[in-house]
Amino acid sequence: MSPARTEWSDAEEEIMRATYRALLSHGYADLSMSHIADELDKSKAAPYYYYDSKDELLVAFLDYAIYRFEDGLDTDVGDDPKERLDHAVEKLLPLRPDEKTRDLQAVLVELRAQAVTNDAFREQFSRLDAEIVETIREIVQRGVDDGTFRDVDATRIAEHVLATIIGGRYGQATTDREDAIGAPRVSLTSYLDAELRPRP
Amino acid sequence: MSPARTEWSDAEEEIMRATYRALLSHGYADLSMSHIADELDKSKAAPYYYYDSKDELLVAFLDYAIYRFEDGLDTDVGDDPKERLDHAVEKLLPLRPDEKTRDLQAVLVELRAQAVTNDAFREQFSRLDAEIVETIREIVQRGVDDGTFRDVDATRIAEHVLATIIGGRYGQATTDREDAIGAPRVSLTSYLDAELRPRP
Repeated sequence: MSPARTEWSDAEEEIMRATYRALLSHGYADLSMSHIADELDKSKAAPYYYYDSKDELLVAFLDYAIYRFEDGLDTDVGDDPKERLDHAVEKLLPLRPDEKTRDLQAVLVELRAQAVTNDAFREQFSRLDAEIVETIREIVQRGVDDGTFRDVDATRIAEHVLATIIGGRYGQATTDREDAIGAPRVSLTSYLDAELRPRP
Repeated sequence: MSPARTEWSDAEEEIMRATYRALLSHGYADLSMSHIADELDKSKAAPYYYYDSKDELLVAFLDYAIYRFEDGLDTDVGDDPKERLDHAVEKLLPLRPDEKTRDLQAVLVELRAQAVTNDAFREQFSRLDAEIVETIREIVQRGVDDGTFRDVDATRIAEHVLATIIGGRYGQATTDREDAIGAPRVSLTSYLDAELRPRP
């Protein structure tokens, strides 16, 4: 796996933001390079200068999305492991996602499906999932170490959180079930409480 | 939501089996009506006689797959709620899926992504998820009623099992993470044990 990218030029960041807007407007299937160019204020040729194809641009977009996502997952919150965990879970599976968040999740569902057959997409989603597990694992382990949480296998908990989050998002994006949004989040909170609360 | 179909003519069953084989060989994106016709022994025109388009045929295929799936989810197993639950979990998220099962899961990941934008696909996956939740809920409720399990909210447990299963399958089909197969299943088993085992 190639290392995650952490440097983006201003021009590339601008293309990434344009890609984000174009994805929200058109979805993955209908997205074209010219939709992305339309979202750019300046040169319409800019995306083609940096990327040969829609899929190459989208792999870079996933890199950028993961980088930005890591940035926000575990910040703006104190040192308390319980607060940090609640914050991360709310970021990953919001209880009441707004329309923009739901649109973004729907786009990610479409992008992830490409990972079945496209190795570059697969590498990005492998990295994204590994990052989520590592973030949750580290928070849980801190809580175990300082006595906030019970002495659990932090990796097992983190893998379970990842599976629930992915499953919850897919339920939201691909069904009309009325419980699809709230139910996985409520059950995840209940799971974490049951697994982590220290025994009296 | 239209009622689930329970009757299939021999000719339609044959087309469904051909569709299944064609999906395993070609995946969703590359699948064409003629790939499906190629898998049929008899008339190459048969799929076109019944279905106008690939997507219309695939919606029928999902109907058929759900019908067959329900058939196998809770059979060949006795009355013991714990055995029934273990059996259902193994069917839904096998610990060591064989290649054919993994290919089928990958195809379902691609089909489910269509549900983001296609209402007919969305209706099928809404129904599939509701069926899974109802099957698990009923098994858990029986176990609560006969004292095998603790007195839990069977619907909450069933929704959590659904989210974990979907998430686990997506991890398998869309990443190369070495824990993607075993980890969600191990954590799900641990979750069910922690939630359901009667307190001493």
